[in-house]
Amino acid sequence: MELKAAQQKVDEWISQFEEGYWPPLANLARLVEEVGELARLVNHRFGTKPKKDSEADQDMGEELADVMFVLLCMANEQGIDMDAAFEGVLEKYRVRDGDRWPRKD
Amino acid sequence: MELKAAQQKVDEWISQFEEGYWPPLANLARLVEEVGELARLVNHRFGTKPKKDSEADQDMGEELADVMFVLLCMANEQGIDMDAAFEGVLEKYRVRDGDRWPRKD
Amino acid sequence: MELKAAQQKVDEWISQFEEGYWPPLANLARLVEEVGELARLVNHRFGTKPKKDSEADQDMGEELADVMFVLLCMANEQGIDMDAAFEGVLEKYRVRDGDRWPRKD
Amino acid sequence: MELKAAQQKVDEWISQFEEGYWPPLANLARLVEEVGELARLVNHRFGTKPKKDSEADQDMGEELADVMFVLLCMANEQGIDMDAAFEGVLEKYRVRDGDRWPRKD
Repeated sequence: MELKAAQQKVDEWISQFEEGYWPPLANLARLVEEVGELARLVNHRFGTKPKKDSEADQDMGEELADVMFVLLCMANEQGIDMDAAFEGVLEKYRVRDGDRWPRKD
Repeated sequence: MELKAAQQKVDEWISQFEEGYWPPLANLARLVEEVGELARLVNHRFGTKPKKDSEADQDMGEELADVMFVLLCMANEQGIDMDAAFEGVLEKYRVRDGDRWPRKD
Repeated sequence: MELKAAQQKVDEWISQFEEGYWPPLANLARLVEEVGELARLVNHRFGTKPKKDSEADQDMGEELADVMFVLLCMANEQGIDMDAAFEGVLEKYRVRDGDRWPRKD
Repeated sequence: MELKAAQQKVDEWISQFEEGYWPPLANLARLVEEVGELARLVNHRFGTKPKKDSEADQDMGEELADVMFVLLCMANEQGIDMDAAFEGVLEKYRVRDGDRWPRKD
């Protein structure tokens, strides 16, 4: 799936409801809620917190995709093209961080 | 850009360094750092906090893409296909939330 | 309750278990999980997200205190005196931000 | 310092400005910003991310206290007594989690 198509899928989903997109601060709160659920899973899997049985089958891909869904909501609500934004970040890293860590031989 | 290609671009970037991918808890901490920068920008733009001049030209697309970059690092480190994970989340929403909010006529 | 006493209550609680304090990155993940639950509640109460009945009686004080509990765990694990740290932050604000916003007459 | 006194210090600070307390979603965004700064420091100290020199003298107590300051802002804005809320959380843990982890002999 193209990033543009992913943004469009999100838009089709949101557009069918009267409520439409939430404003940025409410979207951010939802993003934080989803990052919190990801944190819970990461801690259960890779941290010190013992995993309860009922959470044994949670899926990290699902938690990551839940976060991505809200990111794309925030982008859509602001009319941001994530494809261009992501290319920009890759370019920023190349310029800023290319010499920041030791490279492999 | 396809989501798969975005994951591959991230992998090409990370793979050139000796350090490689961080473990999940360190990646999560970096995700939280990037979400914090997004929160700062959202509050400056849409909240009550007055914007300082030096931050006037920050770009929300860049902050969103910084978050997405770390998400894709976490996915790559775990061998997760975000394309499939995102399709799964769209399907979950269709099943779970299709009747949760009033639809447009 | 004094801040020092609050830190000591946390220490008494944690000290009774074999596991003891978690390391900083795991504590941070738990902090993020608790902040996520707070975000969910804040969005339900003050955002656009409709509140489900089962969450109608959640308590914001409880969510704030859950976050504070993890903060004090992180402080204890590092041997940090939050009383002194909090005084330092108040002093920082006085020096840095005293003229940042318009004062009342 | 008592928790009540800490809440009062925050109130004295905020009350001198025209702007007063922010609404809950804006306070939450600020909390997330501060948690992001804490995450950055924790990753620098205890994670895989290399520490830059300019950040060598950052103080974890300060970052924790910055988070606590915003927590107390949120409590004050909602008229919440953190002393009572914290006692409630300690009691919740005693009831819910007293048998959750192995105790020391």
